[in-house]
Amino acid sequence: MSLMLAEILEQPAVLQRTIDAEREKMTRLGDFLRQKDIDLIVIAARGSSDNAALFGRYLLEMTTGIPVSLSAPSVYTLYNAKLRLNRALVIGVSQSGEGVDINLVLERAKDAGAFTVGITNEAESTMARLADETLLIHAGREKSVAATKTYTGQMLHFYMLAAAIGDKRIDYYRIPEFTEKALELRPAVEEMVQRYAFMENCVVVGRGVNYGNSYELALKLMETCYVVAERFSSADFFHGPLAIVERRFPVILFGPAGVTEAGNIDLLKRLKELHADCLSITNSSEIASLSARSLTLPSDIDEILTPIPFVAPAQMFAAYLSVAKGLDPDAPRSLTKVTKTI
Amino acid sequence: MSLMLAEILEQPAVLQRTIDAEREKMTRLGDFLRQKDIDLIVIAARGSSDNAALFGRYLLEMTTGIPVSLSAPSVYTLYNAKLRLNRALVIGVSQSGEGVDINLVLERAKDAGAFTVGITNEAESTMARLADETLLIHAGREKSVAATKTYTGQMLHFYMLAAAIGDKRIDYYRIPEFTEKALELRPAVEEMVQRYAFMENCVVVGRGVNYGNSYELALKLMETCYVVAERFSSADFFHGPLAIVERRFPVILFGPAGVTEAGNIDLLKRLKELHADCLSITNSSEIASLSARSLTLPSDIDEILTPIPFVAPAQMFAAYLSVAKGLDPDAPRSLTKVTKTI
Repeated sequence: MSLMLAEILEQPAVLQRTIDAEREKMTRLGDFLRQKDIDLIVIAARGSSDNAALFGRYLLEMTTGIPVSLSAPSVYTLYNAKLRLNRALVIGVSQSGEGVDINLVLERAKDAGAFTVGITNEAESTMARLADETLLIHAGREKSVAATKTYTGQMLHFYMLAAAIGDKRIDYYRIPEFTEKALELRPAVEEMVQRYAFMENCVVVGRGVNYGNSYELALKLMETCYVVAERFSSADFFHGPLAIVERRFPVILFGPAGVTEAGNIDLLKRLKELHADCLSITNSSEIASLSARSLTLPSDIDEILTPIPFVAPAQMFAAYLSVAKGLDPDAPRSLTKVTKTI
Repeated sequence: MSLMLAEILEQPAVLQRTIDAEREKMTRLGDFLRQKDIDLIVIAARGSSDNAALFGRYLLEMTTGIPVSLSAPSVYTLYNAKLRLNRALVIGVSQSGEGVDINLVLERAKDAGAFTVGITNEAESTMARLADETLLIHAGREKSVAATKTYTGQMLHFYMLAAAIGDKRIDYYRIPEFTEKALELRPAVEEMVQRYAFMENCVVVGRGVNYGNSYELALKLMETCYVVAERFSSADFFHGPLAIVERRFPVILFGPAGVTEAGNIDLLKRLKELHADCLSITNSSEIASLSARSLTLPSDIDEILTPIPFVAPAQMFAAYLSVAKGLDPDAPRSLTKVTKTI
């Protein structure tokens, strides 16, 4: 078994461990942040962490009403700008805690009077030392180059943070169990990937809380399968990119039941007219029936809780497809684990 | 000549007309906004307008110090969130002024106490009626499905706004002349596209103020040439996507002289090791010499002023490549001009 697949399978345990270990700290942090006059949340990240941040952005805006800005690190690192962040909560997200540019954003934010939080898997990292508060993912060392268990661990921290500072009830404690359930799709995924062994391009689509997942699956397909994978929100897909879809073009959709369902059904109908080949990760029977193939999850998962269970089969899809293509998901060409951009 | 190419060539005149017609209004708006206690700018847009917004985000943060958030419209339209925007400037960007979701963001922002601005090409549009202030692009009707002159017109408005509310001197009045100069590359582009007639995939890379251009050229290549075109910042490209680059893989780089130059040179050296095939749009002789092909602009354009002149040859590249591929850039399959997402 690849390291990547082994780490994918660890996720329910990692998530549970992280909830148990971080819950109390999160409650304290929430109480503290509720008292501060925070009117902006900035999230700084790169790679998979940035995809988790993209999810966090939707979740935090929806549940706290505080506007979120996804940081453009080069504004600080290259253009040397000083932003007004005195009423901001600035969150850095980095698996290793050693992303140089992300840590520089945190430093600058502290200088500007912001309260800073680091979300990382490494308690002894530069980020953990630097941030005013550290939210730890309890994933153990991530050995696979392709991040999986730290990606979902980062997403979990956004749920816990949203529950702690917002007024909305979020049943995040059910996520480990839903994720366990999602991993039961493993034999179905292992068999299904053979159909995609010669896929060279594809588009991954998601919207709202699953938008970040579309970026993450596309990244996994690029890293481990060398598939040129585009990623779009189903809304943006109609603005131009739809033109690349020709007969048999593969489209992978994160299509949960819930508020994004109607829009995704419209998209699938349009794609059917164009004879595209759609694979849906879904818990909606209508979305499944409109797709050439589907990976189906339990229908009782609330839309807001779908992103982590829905990405688990997507991660397995990339890990198995890599092998089906004769590649090694643990040894993607040209890459290293820690990237120190400046 | 295609409508698309004709409209590309109109750009210096459109830019000059827009400066002349909007300058006074912009000065008044700047004085007004400086007096308000604005601590956040939100920009809402889709498609090419969203690529202009991505540019605007960098420019406004760099020059005004006010944090910018690129809006996720579904937070309002699907999840019905109410964001705290009472100290925000919220800018909607839409060529037609009829983007339903973008106008809904503006409405909600007004309800939340924000000051709203619309950037549009249509004086009689819903957006123009809705926004507290309208910044008009004076492009005349845009007939091509692929937006070009309104994209650069939107970018110009971000320059004028940044100059009006920030303290930084921005010589935006020179942009029409630089763009005129850039259009002199037309015969070179027309000849060069033949080499790319069978290109099916590519990656477009840009960073900082040229990051939005990488999205825009990728979108143009998807819309008019059906090329599966990825877009990344040169920083993110090292996080995973680099794995898709194999021998002869085409990479198109926006590589101006200036602060992003060193990072782009590192990227080009790495791509050379991987035997990628790089086309640079640049005014740096080192970047040109590290690329298989280049489109070279005058070296005296300040980096901050490069985005509009640099995108002009990129637009021509897409328009001519479409024809070289036996397609019609004015009739992209599956698309319509106005997209009314909700």
